[in-house]
Amino acid sequence: METPLVRIAELEIDARQVEAYRNALKEEVETSIRVEPGVLTLYAVSVKGQPNQVRIFETYKDEAAYESHLQAPHFKKYKAETRGMVKSLKLIETEPILLGRK
Amino acid sequence: METPLVRIAELEIDARQVEAYRNALKEEVETSIRVEPGVLTLYAVSVKGQPNQVRIFETYKDEAAYESHLQAPHFKKYKAETRGMVKSLKLIETEPILLGRK
Repeated sequence: METPLVRIAELEIDARQVEAYRNALKEEVETSIRVEPGVLTLYAVSVKGQPNQVRIFETYKDEAAYESHLQAPHFKKYKAETRGMVKSLKLIETEPILLGRK
Repeated sequence: METPLVRIAELEIDARQVEAYRNALKEEVETSIRVEPGVLTLYAVSVKGQPNQVRIFETYKDEAAYESHLQAPHFKKYKAETRGMVKSLKLIETEPILLGRK
């Protein structure tokens, strides 16, 4: 089995634009999962009580699937739409230990 | 559909005990996914280049499934085994925005 590529994104959103950001993110997640075979999970959550603190747990089939995602039109649209909403973005590259799931 | 309970665990492991910790964690993840119907994901990763920095993305069917997990013998065994290996543990409670997956 190939090792998937797993990345954790930590974002701080402009508090006045949380609702617009969430809508753009939901559209991006829904489209990516539906049309990109190599996008395995995009688990988007906010920290409890801090809706402007967003965490996304991203799993791609492999490096190529991740590179393809970066070039996808829906991803580029999301990046353009949310540019003025994201105050900070930290991308954490990881190495899987065990990706346990049902 | 019920809203699952999602939690992110951030752990710092004693660098001299990383291998033993990983083995205990893998056993705990494998057993939880296999025997607990309400444990949906336990995605365990380490930060790239920092094997003692562990992140676990945990998804439970609901609050009851999470409470049940805390009482499971394999979880208690893991906690006892790893007590002297974990230098710090931060548990981040979250609210799902959209849990996108294949």
